[in-house]
Amino acid sequence: MGRGSNGQSRLVVIGGDAAGMSAASQARRHKSSAELEILALEAGEHTSYSACGIPYFVAATVPEAQDLVVRDPATFAHRHHIEVRTRCEVTKIDLDRRVVRTAHADGSAGEEPFDQLMLATGALPRRPDLPGADAEGVFGVQTLTDGIELRAEIEERAPRRAVVVGGGYIGLEMAEAFLQRGMVVDLIEALPEPMSTLDPDMGGLVREALREMGVNFHPNTPVTGFEAPEGRVRAVHTAGGGHEADIVVLGLGTRPNSDLARAAGIAIGPTGGVAVDARMRTSAPGVWAAGDCVETFHRVSRAPVAIALGTHANKQGRVAGDNIGGGYARFPGVVGTALTKVCGLEVARTGLNEAQAHRAAYMFDTVTVESSTRAGYYPGAGAITVKLLAERGSGRLLGGQIVGCENAGKRIDVLATALWNEMTVADMAGMDLGYAPPFAPVWDPVLIAARKLAERR
Amino acid sequence: MGRGSNGQSRLVVIGGDAAGMSAASQARRHKSSAELEILALEAGEHTSYSACGIPYFVAATVPEAQDLVVRDPATFAHRHHIEVRTRCEVTKIDLDRRVVRTAHADGSAGEEPFDQLMLATGALPRRPDLPGADAEGVFGVQTLTDGIELRAEIEERAPRRAVVVGGGYIGLEMAEAFLQRGMVVDLIEALPEPMSTLDPDMGGLVREALREMGVNFHPNTPVTGFEAPEGRVRAVHTAGGGHEADIVVLGLGTRPNSDLARAAGIAIGPTGGVAVDARMRTSAPGVWAAGDCVETFHRVSRAPVAIALGTHANKQGRVAGDNIGGGYARFPGVVGTALTKVCGLEVARTGLNEAQAHRAAYMFDTVTVESSTRAGYYPGAGAITVKLLAERGSGRLLGGQIVGCENAGKRIDVLATALWNEMTVADMAGMDLGYAPPFAPVWDPVLIAARKLAERR
Repeated sequence: MGRGSNGQSRLVVIGGDAAGMSAASQARRHKSSAELEILALEAGEHTSYSACGIPYFVAATVPEAQDLVVRDPATFAHRHHIEVRTRCEVTKIDLDRRVVRTAHADGSAGEEPFDQLMLATGALPRRPDLPGADAEGVFGVQTLTDGIELRAEIEERAPRRAVVVGGGYIGLEMAEAFLQRGMVVDLIEALPEPMSTLDPDMGGLVREALREMGVNFHPNTPVTGFEAPEGRVRAVHTAGGGHEADIVVLGLGTRPNSDLARAAGIAIGPTGGVAVDARMRTSAPGVWAAGDCVETFHRVSRAPVAIALGTHANKQGRVAGDNIGGGYARFPGVVGTALTKVCGLEVARTGLNEAQAHRAAYMFDTVTVESSTRAGYYPGAGAITVKLLAERGSGRLLGGQIVGCENAGKRIDVLATALWNEMTVADMAGMDLGYAPPFAPVWDPVLIAARKLAERR
Repeated sequence: MGRGSNGQSRLVVIGGDAAGMSAASQARRHKSSAELEILALEAGEHTSYSACGIPYFVAATVPEAQDLVVRDPATFAHRHHIEVRTRCEVTKIDLDRRVVRTAHADGSAGEEPFDQLMLATGALPRRPDLPGADAEGVFGVQTLTDGIELRAEIEERAPRRAVVVGGGYIGLEMAEAFLQRGMVVDLIEALPEPMSTLDPDMGGLVREALREMGVNFHPNTPVTGFEAPEGRVRAVHTAGGGHEADIVVLGLGTRPNSDLARAAGIAIGPTGGVAVDARMRTSAPGVWAAGDCVETFHRVSRAPVAIALGTHANKQGRVAGDNIGGGYARFPGVVGTALTKVCGLEVARTGLNEAQAHRAAYMFDTVTVESSTRAGYYPGAGAITVKLLAERGSGRLLGGQIVGCENAGKRIDVLATALWNEMTVADMAGMDLGYAPPFAPVWDPVLIAARKLAERR
């Protein structure tokens, strides 16, 4: 193998963000530039940035967009001998000729040959197919460019009323950002509760907290259109009436951006993500994929899932890069851990929620306990609610959800680690977790929940 | 079995704190007062209080001593039908006659018969056998009464210079308390670094932080005596010179208070703690023990250890109570997790440190990584250092230590859970831990450490 007469081969990476650049960097650790030429093609302007940080940049909690950029193209070129071309969109993958076709910002087109190809095309935001959805003042927060434009709008036009469509992670984080910017915030959700990756009872705690923070939360409220009389949004119309808006953010989730792969005949899985094996190989020889564009193995449901999250993208990209470079690495799958905060409320989940457990054909019991983040007498102790699901009979932990004040959320890691190890709640109840009054009550909330669920069964 | 003519049997509990009252309460859940009479005898004045909270009461972070008391004797009597006698010391256990001999505060003595006996005699503070160690102004912080006397001394005499002897958990917490009280603090430690349950390199981080907080830390400094010309302490003498002191606290650790059991012929283990099996049975039929007075199984070293910690006492007491009440429960052992903070510094450890791993005949590799508690660009991100030990060959995690700013310490729970499950560092490196910028960098510090140690091997 190897295109050049000198035995050098060529890796082309489509997508210059977390997965793509992790793969490129890791491949470089295995192979020198004399052995492997690496070219990364990025449709946008920025490489290797923290997309998860965009809401905090919009809030001005993070001062500069540049703060979110981990490495820029010049750094990749100089330190890693990886060429990155931004504003370079790949329009087609030709597997027979082993080239990708490119379109550049200046209107020109080209072709780039590859020996190995790394797909890291990310996710596409879901946009409602509704009148006015592309009006001025309606924003997504998918890319850093989106975030920069949104913040510029806030700082230039000083909008007073924000409408956030979608009550998931991005919706909550943007609601927080707009509150911090001093705006009136309406949060519109089609389902009965926010945070639909939680069970509705736990989502209800988030709803109550949102109201206390001053967010106008509108459940069961599908959006029907956007009023934009002169091309600029003025209101959001819903089944329950209109909501005035100087600015609108869409947080309706994402889908894997697998269109290029599909068009090239690369296998797509049931979730719409590129199908990969544990080494991040696609169905096409020499073609790898990682990050938001792929689907991945869920260790509890044993089914493929598409989860857009930077931490998975980084790990998967690293695994792909190891394998591309001639090493051996496997991505072990996920347990569906996710974590966010909105003002003083922390929200976390891992494993399967009730609906997911039903779908995965588990019978299960649940427990919900209310406890305290610290010893009750210690200043700053606050409420934490922990819900656990365990398989009936075996008592195996299937999932957990946490809603609470500061220091509540990261406790999800204990549940994620327990899930990883297929622990039973009875075994969990005896665990030797860290105890001291500033950190936990003498029975950690996680242990109380596990014990109560073990006793119930 | 059963003493009374009506088939009622009698449980006597020696020690009315965490282990004893947990056992009593749990036994009561199984057996009504018609079936089981329960009498708890407590030498001190208080029952069922958080001993771990005493430093925070001394600091006045916790306003009232009563805040630390979970349940008082009246509550036990009314709600649980458990009789508690305070200021009632047990002076002898007579296994042949199945009675305990008691001595009361008023000088009277008595005997109490039992069918089952629960030993929850706690730990005794190590006191140096040095001149002046019992002078006025020299305090322990073992019991709530100690804490009340110490706080009264501070509030009545307004001492300006405090000397803390011993740089372990209690020593650090008392140093914090005295700083918060506005005192000049000297912390005297016989070993080279504070926190000897950490390896010296990690202890060194604690030492540096103590100095930054304004604590005068004196390593390698054995105490040689206490200067108390008129019965009140005025200075602490050490191998390295004298230190003026208006008040002195001894934090030299504890030993299991197993003297009564030993005198009764009950088996004592190699650590000096009462030997118990997983059901918390001692060598004597019908005699149980739990809490700081027992030794317990360490799941990593597979050797008995004596660890005085409220969370173990509660769990073990509960196990004993289940079994006393006719149920079936086992205490699964510990992995040696401990956690504290001193001002802004959080310190945590679990499993074996290097010296302990050597003693347990493990060959091992270590890694130490410096990372950030949050995404680097997120406000409040601060330093965290994670050290891991893994067995050579297998890569099995043997222990971990964490020193860092706020939000660093409780991450020890991931390591404790991994140890519980005998995970390898390679398996840990792939775990799906919670990620969001306010909570962690995209690679959690724990994952980075596991990955680097897995790569090194």
